[in-house]
Formats: sequence, structure tokens, C-alpha cells
Amino acid sequence: MSDLRVIIKRDSAEPEERTVTTGTTAAELFQGERSVIAARVGGELKDLAYAVADGEEVEPVEISSEDGLNILRHSTAHVMAQAVQELFPDAKLGIGPPVRDGFYYDFDVDKPFHPDDLKAIEKKMQEIQKRGQRFSRRVVTDEQARQELAGEPYKLELIGLKGSSATSDDGADVEVGGGELTIYDNLDAKTGELCWKDLCRGPHLPSTRNIPAFKLMRNAAAYWRGSEKNPMLQRIYGTAWPTKEELKAHLDFLEEAAKRDHRKLGSELDLFSIPEQIGSGLAVFHPKGGIVRRVMEDYSRRRHEEEGYDFVYTPHATKGTLFEISGHLDWYADGMYPPMQLDEGTDYYLKPMNCPMHNLVFDARGRSYRELPLRFFEFGTVYRYEKSGVVHGLTRARGFTQDDAHIYCTKEQMADELDSTLTFVLNLLRDYGLTDFYLELSTKDPEKYVGSDEVWEEATETLRKVAEKQGLPLVPDPGGAAFYGPKISVQTKDAIGRSWQMSTVQLDFNLPERFDLQYTAPDGSRQRPVMIHRALFGSIERFFAVLLEHYAGAFPAWLAPVQAVGIPVGDAHVPYLQEFAGEAKRKGLRVEVDASSDRMQKKIRTHQKLKVPFMIIVGDEDMTNGTVSFRYRDGSQENGIPRDQALAKLVDVVERRVQV
Amino acid sequence: MSDLRVIIKRDSAEPEERTVTTGTTAAELFQGERSVIAARVGGELKDLAYAVADGEEVEPVEISSEDGLNILRHSTAHVMAQAVQELFPDAKLGIGPPVRDGFYYDFDVDKPFHPDDLKAIEKKMQEIQKRGQRFSRRVVTDEQARQELAGEPYKLELIGLKGSSATSDDGADVEVGGGELTIYDNLDAKTGELCWKDLCRGPHLPSTRNIPAFKLMRNAAAYWRGSEKNPMLQRIYGTAWPTKEELKAHLDFLEEAAKRDHRKLGSELDLFSIPEQIGSGLAVFHPKGGIVRRVMEDYSRRRHEEEGYDFVYTPHATKGTLFEISGHLDWYADGMYPPMQLDEGTDYYLKPMNCPMHNLVFDARGRSYRELPLRFFEFGTVYRYEKSGVVHGLTRARGFTQDDAHIYCTKEQMADELDSTLTFVLNLLRDYGLTDFYLELSTKDPEKYVGSDEVWEEATETLRKVAEKQGLPLVPDPGGAAFYGPKISVQTKDAIGRSWQMSTVQLDFNLPERFDLQYTAPDGSRQRPVMIHRALFGSIERFFAVLLEHYAGAFPAWLAPVQAVGIPVGDAHVPYLQEFAGEAKRKGLRVEVDASSDRMQKKIRTHQKLKVPFMIIVGDEDMTNGTVSFRYRDGSQENGIPRDQALAKLVDVVERRVQV
Repeated sequence: MSDLRVIIKRDSAEPEERTVTTGTTAAELFQGERSVIAARVGGELKDLAYAVADGEEVEPVEISSEDGLNILRHSTAHVMAQAVQELFPDAKLGIGPPVRDGFYYDFDVDKPFHPDDLKAIEKKMQEIQKRGQRFSRRVVTDEQARQELAGEPYKLELIGLKGSSATSDDGADVEVGGGELTIYDNLDAKTGELCWKDLCRGPHLPSTRNIPAFKLMRNAAAYWRGSEKNPMLQRIYGTAWPTKEELKAHLDFLEEAAKRDHRKLGSELDLFSIPEQIGSGLAVFHPKGGIVRRVMEDYSRRRHEEEGYDFVYTPHATKGTLFEISGHLDWYADGMYPPMQLDEGTDYYLKPMNCPMHNLVFDARGRSYRELPLRFFEFGTVYRYEKSGVVHGLTRARGFTQDDAHIYCTKEQMADELDSTLTFVLNLLRDYGLTDFYLELSTKDPEKYVGSDEVWEEATETLRKVAEKQGLPLVPDPGGAAFYGPKISVQTKDAIGRSWQMSTVQLDFNLPERFDLQYTAPDGSRQRPVMIHRALFGSIERFFAVLLEHYAGAFPAWLAPVQAVGIPVGDAHVPYLQEFAGEAKRKGLRVEVDASSDRMQKKIRTHQKLKVPFMIIVGDEDMTNGTVSFRYRDGSQENGIPRDQALAKLVDVVERRVQV
Repeated sequence: MSDLRVIIKRDSAEPEERTVTTGTTAAELFQGERSVIAARVGGELKDLAYAVADGEEVEPVEISSEDGLNILRHSTAHVMAQAVQELFPDAKLGIGPPVRDGFYYDFDVDKPFHPDDLKAIEKKMQEIQKRGQRFSRRVVTDEQARQELAGEPYKLELIGLKGSSATSDDGADVEVGGGELTIYDNLDAKTGELCWKDLCRGPHLPSTRNIPAFKLMRNAAAYWRGSEKNPMLQRIYGTAWPTKEELKAHLDFLEEAAKRDHRKLGSELDLFSIPEQIGSGLAVFHPKGGIVRRVMEDYSRRRHEEEGYDFVYTPHATKGTLFEISGHLDWYADGMYPPMQLDEGTDYYLKPMNCPMHNLVFDARGRSYRELPLRFFEFGTVYRYEKSGVVHGLTRARGFTQDDAHIYCTKEQMADELDSTLTFVLNLLRDYGLTDFYLELSTKDPEKYVGSDEVWEEATETLRKVAEKQGLPLVPDPGGAAFYGPKISVQTKDAIGRSWQMSTVQLDFNLPERFDLQYTAPDGSRQRPVMIHRALFGSIERFFAVLLEHYAGAFPAWLAPVQAVGIPVGDAHVPYLQEFAGEAKRKGLRVEVDASSDRMQKKIRTHQKLKVPFMIIVGDEDMTNGTVSFRYRDGSQENGIPRDQALAKLVDVVERRVQV
């Protein structure tokens, strides 16, 4: 037992050199640190059982770190698979990787799992957790693995795939990785007896006891390795967390998110639907959703007008010629709908982007430097082919309307233009009630870019400066830029803390070249304009969904489909309320009166469910005094407000675009 | 020479019986009536040289009647063909029918006609006209015709087509008709010598002297009998009229129409273009056109809101399923773009109409009678496949935006709804400056309709009543209704007297059935709503073009892209004007200042060409007095208007939407 020298690295401290005896494991290095569940050795994740070698750098992996959570969830997936096979001995194993916030495992079983099955599996998992089985790594040859897993056809397939690039997309690399083949045995804590095993790259927790909190979420069908040509497996999703509190917080978050799900609210509040007869990803907006959308659009239009944007209109379909010029048919064809052949041989396409058409507007006549900057704005509906599996409500759709603009300016104007654009973007988002932002700066991918290095550098520095000026957190995204230019994107957090990418401000060094865009400079020379793409909402439909979820359907009055509803205490108070509503309408407010035969309490419940910002209740006393009573969303009430004051209050709240 | 009895019929008088001798010609019957150039005998058109038979009814054909004009123009086509062959002896004859407002003749010649050729041909025609050649009819056998026309290959082909239905579409029936074969000889007035001849059905004028006024217009290439597989011929268009005054009026009209051509103005005023890279029938609106369009749309939206319409939004593409349900794939497939196949086997289509999608919005949830009438409005862009030959600027496009609405109401509400819709439609058109209307009532085609006779009758009567109530001319269009219901259409005359079909109000007995649309009646039963389609502009793009031509580009200020432009007498007056423009902008006006280095007179000319409603001129005196000077479109000027008054005047003109 000779001595070894290892270096222990921790995020926050100086590297510490330590001398240990041969055979010392990572577990021993971090003994007593209960939150450490694995180690990173020379950059690679290892089990705590890993015996360190001379000269190695060893970092502790905390269960709460991103790597730690992945290991926790991956180990929980193993426990689930063991539980399933204990309960359903004929179940064949697919793969079981960690995913965002949890994990899944796929099984080939005769029939889909029943919710009762999930309960039983969860119970069995708790049992296994308490048993404290050890996760034990063992290197095997292909032949050995094939023998040991002879009863698992999918695992055998994975052994065949070892090291192939085909494993990378679907979690299969969690099983076989690229190097040596390993099996993880689940061993009894006391007897060391083999309880279960899985082909797996690891690493894993030391023991099932290290799983502090988990829960199974739901099951779904999934094709083996994602292909419709393969057998359909049954997938169980679960989640696991470092503490019971974090699990509870996560479940609460999911419950809150489910309540706010825009698809659910869209139906409950009668805002929009995605009819089966039209197809997924293609929504229709109902009258109430139409009001919200129209108000969103109108305000955006007004602000764009004030900011000096010109409004253009372009069609949704075009000859392929345009996308040959723009290059979209080369690098974006997969995202486009297939062509329609017209006039005996000409391919027409739905547009996936508006920029090429705006370039034609720029190029419709000669341009002088005197006209620049030109800012072309359009609510342009684009169509993109998204695979049916990834389409999701309004947030990932196949047709959506961009609040799209393209700015053409001189190089000298670029900095000012980017600065004012970013300020405009952020202020507009704030007007819609979003306030929690950070910026992301996507810079050059050294492998793939057009334009000269100097141009990129200058543009990137300009973007960085205007971004920093906003005083918001700025996250670098090195290599994340599109090949045609760097960009700033605005990320915003909603009311329950979820991040959404909203606006982008994107420089383009490619399209002005491809379209040979030019303007005449003061000296008479022909110059290439700088082109900036920018969208604020990105997609109106998606922004609508984000706001709907952000407000959980309780839109601020200026956006609400119905801003106030009159609730008469009795039939006698209806005309008084209708008069009030008439006055309100003349002031541009959206006020209705519920003159139905329902009783007052029922009406209040109805409009509460519809999340109407204000209820205006009127009884005898109000009628006598020429007043009304307000009932707010929180249930509080304010009585005896003179009619004029009430109207002024409504107008004020709408004009100031505040939430109440 | 025995006696014959003939009956002479005239439009305005009682039939007159006359006894004449055998051999009497129509010419003799109407001797002295210089305006009579042919006769209608027993319903068939005949030359005046026709010898009447016993018992025949004979009507005079006036040169100014529709038949008379056709004969005049057909004879002028013969004169043109003779002139061409006198000047170009190798020219082979195609066909030469009368068309709207004129005629053409096709020739197989080595090279296209030069404008100088047209002048020479016209001169030669004048010569022939003065010669006073007689048009003389001669019946021939096929064999005879073949011999006489051995040198005219196209005529020989026509002889072979005699009586075939293939002759009906392209004017060839003018040559060979369905019955006996005839040749018209052009005979010298004095000698009777044959000057020229043509295979022709006739009838013709008595003499070339009867051609009062004609002009050649232009030439173009045209395939023989309209097919790309046939040789390309050269076509010359001409026009002919009963008087020199009418010819001049027609030429003036054409000149005026050409000046107003929306495609020409669209480019001159930088309003829109139809880029080659996108394809014909698919326009892009430039910033200035975008302003006009946006103002048009905004005002329409505001008025629809006031009239109780709900705004919906629907996508431009959909699964074919929707159009199977609606039936469009059965009866409208030819007008649709070809399908795009998505998701391995599902056909998606661009929508040619919005109605099926609005029906899905209606059907998104249960509907009660209390909600009716429901009025769903959308600026819905639709795509229709028009053959490339008929596409014309913005008036016949392949993609256009309907100001489309669908009204769902009870049968009891139908009359009121139709009444208020028609009033709304007409008033809105008046707001845009159109004032000269007539209505057309399209009623049942007895061959093809859905729904019961009683329903049609009641609906038709209702439409008739609401149409009559408007006090406008009502033109019946029997059999002109679509199979699914009767309709009223609004025809409007523009500033130069052309009729345009604008709005339609269309009942539909078909779609509510096909979509099984229902509402719950007061008694709890499920009832079918009445469905009304209505569009006011029809297509925004087309309405834009109609207004552009109607106003010849000189939009009233409320629609004008730039409402006023400030013209400084010198540089010193620029800041004063900019301040004025700033004030105007804050009042929502579109006012610019021309601060370019051009001289004042040049600026005035520039903005006159751009048809800006008001020029605001400012010199020293105005600056001293705090006034401005107005220059109007007609060139008149009003000086020394105090700034406040000037602003108020602009605001007033815009608000009242008047032309100045």
C-alpha cells in the first residue's frame, strides 16, 4: 500500500493536494460529506467507489448540482426498472435516461401500465430504496454482456450499437456510451447478493438509500429509439430530488403550471382552439381570444409607428426562386412545408420567414442614404414544418404570426439603431407586464460563419455594449450565433419563474449580400446596408400563450376580453347598469351586463371563473345615490362609488395598462 | 314580281305590316334610315342585301345597338385584313372577330408588326374605307371554299371544323358558324371587281363607307386558336365606332383609364409591387401603400366593432379534412392551390375561403339562441389558383385578403340582419368615397340548388325587400345564384363610369348542414342557424386598386400616405415647418417637411406628382405672422392661415374623410 498524490478541487477553494494510500476511493476522500454522491476525476464522472490513481484531480459532485441531479435521477430510473421487473417479470427493458427534472424508463410489456400499476411500482421502489442496495460497476466484454442479458432483446441491440453515433440522440448513450461496456449490479446491502442488473455506463449513487425523494408522474407510449418503424414501448416518467421539500416544491410548481396551461385556459376562457379538422399547430382564435390578440397587436402597431417603423404587407406564398436567392432552400428546407407546383412546373412555398420579402421591398427602387434607417414592420404569418411530436399548443406551432421587422441602416447608424431597438423591445415587453429579464449574447461559431472577422468583432462588441447599457444580467452564448451574424436575445421570467426566450435582435451579414442590397452614399458610391432582424414577441400566438400562463388567465384590464361586467342585485337594476355600460362603451371600454336569470351569487361565481377584472354590482342603494359598487378579483369590494368616478377609474386602469 | 307580306318590328312601336314586291331587300325596307346597317329576320342577323320572304318579321339593326356595333367592328376587321394583305402579300389569315369595344385579326407573318406598320395599315384602311367597297355574301360548297382559299392554310383548317363545337370559344365561329359555308367578297364600288375575300359567316355592313370611325390600337402575339401547341400568330387590335365623337370619347376614356391604371400608379406613387421573384398575383405593399391599406383596414375594423362584429383569427393552411366537410374539394378544387403532403400522408391546403374555419369557431362549443346573431369578422387572406393568363395586378390576384364575415342567426332574425348588413355595407362604401351604386339580386338556378323551394323563396323575397328598401336600382340576375343560396351584390361605378362588383351579401343553406351547426332554442330544441356570408370590399387588395383608380392616385387626405408636406421657401424656414409638422404628428396627422436641397418650385412639382393633398408653404411673412400658406392639389393657394387654424383645418378634413 504505497502512497498516492491526488489534488482535490472545489469550486470555491484553492486546489488541495492530499497524499493517500493506494486503493483509496473517492468515497473515502469525501467521507462525511453526505451531499457528495459522485466524483469528477480528470473531468470524467465516476462512482464514489472509484479508486483514485496517482496525480489525479478529483472534484466532489454534490447531489444538488446539475451532474448530481442527473445521477440521482438515473439511479432512480434503475430502481424503477428493478421494481417493474419484480412486479412484471416479463417486462423487457428499453432505456432509462435522466431528463429535465426527472427520468423515464421504457418497457416492452403486453399492455399499457394502469395508474394502479404506477402506484404499485412506486411502492415497490420505496421498498427497494429502504433495502439500501448498492450500485456496483463491473466492466464486461461484449460477449459476456450478451450472455448475461440474453433475455433482454433491446439491450442486446444496444450492445451492437456500442460507440456508434446513432446512440447519441435518444438516451441510449446512457446505456452503452462510447468506451468499455459496463454492467451495474444492484447488490443486497447485507448479503451482497445480486438483486438486479442493467447494462449501463453510469455513474450511479452509492446506494438506493441515497435517493432522498422521488415520485412517478405518468406513463406514455414511445417507439423504441424514437422511430415509428420500431416496436411501441411503454414509458414511465418519474421525478427525483435531493430533499422532500424540493420534491414538494416541484410538484406544487407542476400543479401551478398545469392550472396555467394555456391550452387548458384557452378552452376554459373560450379564447382559442386547435381544431382537429385543421390540424395540430394551427390555431383558431375565438372572439374573446380575438379581442386580446387585437389589443396586443394594436398596441404594438401604435408603438412601432411611434418608433418610426414603416408597415409593409407581404404574401404567405412565393415562388421557390425567392428562397433560392435567400438560401433558405439550402439551409432551411427541413423547416419548410413541401412545395406546391403551379403553372405546370413552378414550385411555390409557404414562407417560413418574412425577411426575403422585406428585402424585395427594400430593393423595389433605388435607395439613398437619406432614407436610412429604413424599418419595415409586418405582422407576418409564417409556416414552418414542425414534427407532429414536438408541436405544443401555441408555444410550438406550425403557423404563427411574427411581429417581424427588418432594419436597414448604414454601418455608422448600426450602434444607435441596436441601442434604440433593444430599449424599445424591453420597454414594450414591460408594457405587457413582463419585468424580469436577462440578456443572452450569441457569438460566432468559429466553424461556420459568413463575413469578415473584423465585421463580426465590431458587431459583437456593439451588441455587447448596448446589452451592457441596459444594466441587465448578460449571459454569454459563445458559438451560439447563426452563421450569418451575432444576436442578442431577451429571456424573460414569468410569474412562476419559468424562462422564456422572447425578443431577438439579430445582425445579418448574409442576406444583404445574397440580395445585393445597396444604397447610394453621400459620395455617390453604392454601399451595402447593415441589416437587423428583430422580433419582440417572436410569435404573437406564443406571446399570447406566455401572457396567458403568466397571468394565469387573469389579464390586466387593458388586455382582458371583458373589462368589467355589471351584476344587478335584482332585475330592477338592469337598466341602470345598461346605461352605465353604454357610457363605458362610448369611452372605448369593454363592459357587459349579466342580465341572465341566474341569481347574483351564481353570476359572481361565473365571472370570477372567467377572470373578469371588475364586477360592477348595483342594488337599490346605488341606484338611489347614483353610485356603483366594485368587486375586485381578490373578492374585496368597494361600495358607493359615484358613477363618474367609477368610469374614470376604469378608464385610468386601462390607460395605464396596470394589473389590479 | 308578285307581292309579299312582311312585318316590320321596331322596339318602341307596334309591328307594322307591309306589302312589298318579291326581291325586296332589307335595305329597301329601311331606305333613308342611315343608322340601320343590318336586319334581324326571324331572329337571325342578315345583311341589308338580304331579300325578304313572304311572312317574315324584319327588325332594323341600328349601328349603335350591341348587334350593330359587333357588325361594324367585324366589317372593320375585314377591312384591316384586306389592308394587311395588300401591304404584306405573304400574310396568312387567322380569324378576326369583334370583341368588347373593338375587334382583332390574327395573321401569320414572318415578323411582328412594327408600330410604323400599324400606321401604314391604318392609312391603307382609310383608303379602302373611301373606296366604298361592297360586302357581298356568297354561299359556297366546302370544295369550292377549299379551292378558293387554297393559299390560306388556317382558313382551310376552319373549313374542316365547320359545325364542330370546338369553334365556339375563340371567335372561329364568326368565320364558319354551324350551317352553310359562306364567303364575303369585297367588291369595287364602281366596277364590281373582286378586291378581297374572306371565309365568313357575316353579316356585314353594306359597304366599307359605312365605317364611320376606327383606329388601330396595338398588336400582340397570340397562339392560333389559343393553344400553345399551335403556331404563334400576330394579332392586331382595333376599335370602331358609329361616330367620330364616340371614337374620341372611347380613346379619351382609355387614356384616362391608362393614367389611372393601378399597376402604373402603384409604381409611380411607390405603393406596391408584384415582384417577379414571388410570382404574379402576389403583391407586396411598400411603406406608402402600407399606410393606405392600414388606414383602410383600421377604419373598417372600427366600423365592424361598432356594428357588433366579433374578431376571429384563422390560419391560412389546413388539412384537407376541412374542405372535405365543407365540400370545397368537390366543387372548388380547380380554384385551389395543389396540396402539400405533411406527416407522411396528410394533405394540407391553402384556404381559398374563410367560411369553413369560421364554422369551426361557431362549433367550438355549444351555442344558445341568446348569443345570436353571432357575427365573426376576419381580415382573412385566401389563396386561389387563377390561371396565369387572367391574373391582373391587384384586381385579379392569386392571394388576397377578404374583409370577410359570417353571420349566424335565427330564421326570425334573418330579415333584420340582412337589412342592417346591407345598410352597413353601403354606408361603409360611401365612407370610402364611392357613391354610385346599383344592386343585383341573384336568384335560384333551377338546375342546381340545395335546400327547399320554400326556404329559397322566403330568403329571396327577404333579400328583394331589403334591397328595394335602399332605393337603389335593383337588377335581377335570374339563375345567377350559387347552388347554396341567393345573394345581393353591390355594383359601384367609379369616377370614370366603370362598374365594379364590390360587396356581396350571400345566404348559405349548404354549409350549416354540412357542418351540422346547431344552437339551442328557447324551448330546448336544437336548431340550425341561418348563415350569411358577406364581404364589403371583397378583397382589400382589389378595393385598394379600385380606390386607387377611382381617385387616380389622389386619395382623400384621410387615406393619403402623406397628408401634407411642408415646403420651405428657403432653408431658414425649415425649423418653423418642422415644428408645425411635429405638432401635426402629435395630432395623428401624417405630415412631412421637404428639407432637401431642391428649389421650391422643384419641390412643388415633386409633391404634386406624388399627389399629396396639401402643401404647406412657409416664407418670411408666414414666419413673422405665425401663419402658413396652403397650396391645394388644383394649384390654388390660400395664404396667411394662422397655425392653429391650419392644424384644425387638416384635422377636420381628415376626420370628415372628405376629398378636397
